[in-house]
Amino acid sequence: MKVQLIGFGNVGKSLLELILDEYPKLEAMKLNLKFVSISDSKGTAVDEEGLDLSNVLKYKSVGWSGCDYYLKGYSALDAIKCIDSDLVVELTPSTNNGEPGLSHIKTAFTLKKHVVTANKGPLVVAFKQLKNMAIENNVDFLYEATVAAHVPIFCLLSSCFLADEILKVEGIFNATTNYIICEMEKGNSFQNALDNAIKAGWAETNYADDVDGVDAARKVVILANTIFDSDFKLKDVKVEGIRNVEPLIVEAKRQSKKVKLLCEIIKKDSEISLQVSPKMIPLDDPLSTVNYGDMAVKFYFKNSQEIFVSAKFKSPRQTAQAVLNDIIKVALKRKCTRQPA
Amino acid sequence: MKVQLIGFGNVGKSLLELILDEYPKLEAMKLNLKFVSISDSKGTAVDEEGLDLSNVLKYKSVGWSGCDYYLKGYSALDAIKCIDSDLVVELTPSTNNGEPGLSHIKTAFTLKKHVVTANKGPLVVAFKQLKNMAIENNVDFLYEATVAAHVPIFCLLSSCFLADEILKVEGIFNATTNYIICEMEKGNSFQNALDNAIKAGWAETNYADDVDGVDAARKVVILANTIFDSDFKLKDVKVEGIRNVEPLIVEAKRQSKKVKLLCEIIKKDSEISLQVSPKMIPLDDPLSTVNYGDMAVKFYFKNSQEIFVSAKFKSPRQTAQAVLNDIIKVALKRKCTRQPA
Repeated sequence: MKVQLIGFGNVGKSLLELILDEYPKLEAMKLNLKFVSISDSKGTAVDEEGLDLSNVLKYKSVGWSGCDYYLKGYSALDAIKCIDSDLVVELTPSTNNGEPGLSHIKTAFTLKKHVVTANKGPLVVAFKQLKNMAIENNVDFLYEATVAAHVPIFCLLSSCFLADEILKVEGIFNATTNYIICEMEKGNSFQNALDNAIKAGWAETNYADDVDGVDAARKVVILANTIFDSDFKLKDVKVEGIRNVEPLIVEAKRQSKKVKLLCEIIKKDSEISLQVSPKMIPLDDPLSTVNYGDMAVKFYFKNSQEIFVSAKFKSPRQTAQAVLNDIIKVALKRKCTRQPA
Repeated sequence: MKVQLIGFGNVGKSLLELILDEYPKLEAMKLNLKFVSISDSKGTAVDEEGLDLSNVLKYKSVGWSGCDYYLKGYSALDAIKCIDSDLVVELTPSTNNGEPGLSHIKTAFTLKKHVVTANKGPLVVAFKQLKNMAIENNVDFLYEATVAAHVPIFCLLSSCFLADEILKVEGIFNATTNYIICEMEKGNSFQNALDNAIKAGWAETNYADDVDGVDAARKVVILANTIFDSDFKLKDVKVEGIRNVEPLIVEAKRQSKKVKLLCEIIKKDSEISLQVSPKMIPLDDPLSTVNYGDMAVKFYFKNSQEIFVSAKFKSPRQTAQAVLNDIIKVALKRKCTRQPA
């Protein structure tokens, strides 16, 4: 399968490293993954026969100097349009208007290329449109890494509960706020906890979207749209951030509870409500054990009842693992349709 | 897809009820599930055009009286051999020698029929043989419900971590012992807690296999063999039950910890060790939140790190849901190989 990588930051680099490390496993699956182009913001490395990934990583680390297969100014969009491929892996940064990822994904779909992405932006602004384009063009569209990357949420939903129905979801989807709340529970003020989070690399200096619950709300939009095949936008989520969470933390301590910025998706009759807000969690609820960069989701099913999944955050490679799993799923499916048994 | 149901106890009945309840969902998937025979210990209901499931449930509840498609004395094995079908769903009770399930499954495989089962027995005594037979005959063999039925363990492993590797597993797989330990933590003696478990329907009067950790060990065998493609038997598991767990519970309380009958599968270098024993669990470990009939598993992956999954037990329908999910997976795969896009 011919793959194009768009966006070559931390996740992209981790992805290539992971592929090199797990090469024997991938070989055994006979997927024949071939990276025909890799684009960053300044240009594109191209080899239609398949790039040597260890070379790519080496050249990237020195700013592509001395690399003759890197075409400066050859944009991601040009690469998607002009280079033959089966799958576009879109890993550019998330933005409020979804660009440039949105154009990358739409262009890939019109050319009947599958898309795997870790980029929330396009999915938040144009979920239904993108889903419909994927269906019309008969291609796969997978995005496991967009919501709590280290928890395999979409994979679980698409394979393990095929005849079931979700009635409610509770999730902890934002690491920055979870880190800050954990620090506050240790006695720090909001400001101190935020400073610690920035120092530890958990919060960006532009932390507003995290602290005000907007990042978590974006994930709620993607998850709710996936579950209910709906077209919710960010404005449909009732959002409360953690700037004024201190009194709740004091009260929670008094009641021997924990505080979490809880994402909630609730279906009641045919009404679906979406919410992000700090909530008290009792200690016998597994959500209370989700600390710092860990993430979790709890599904309430009609038949399967309550299923809780959490994952400890230990390294950015976990996001790359989610992306790679999506890539493999696309490749395995193609293998299946190409070679009917 | 033509299905034969073998074993018509609680899980079988829940399965048919679930299928009737979720009929619109199954219809939409175009799987065309048709039950051509249903066998219990005394005979077999047969209709090669597809049995009416609500009729079957009605007749079963009155001991098949008045039902002219129920053939008394027509055994499960006869049904598997003589009736045309694609899939055998094996739900007979688990036994120490694996029979009669073992013969049912082997016979199905030699006739190139897929098998879905909730029956641990055959998998504990002949895991590798059955796996190999399935591969040789190019059929599916799914058994989600055999290990912690309400936690989608095998589904998760087979779809969400395709290029990853498991280094360690910790699980809580036995409801009876978990119930007894929870009761003891509330101050009951072992004997009182056991009596309560029997009264509440969590322990059978023949409780030895549960209390002595043997049932949990069986699940360890199936899970370890699946993960490592190995051929462990029951004797390879180091097992300690909960008859003498009281001092550990006292000590755990002193340390503000919980006690669980922990199943462990540990890979170190190329050595794999299997163990079932009562262990102290700290309160910030999500395993500590798994109470009474709930079950859980924690995987330690090389790339994805720690993934924890738990499920609350609320009704036997959850086991049926695991079986139905396996049935749907087989049917979807067949659809894919039959109608390449």
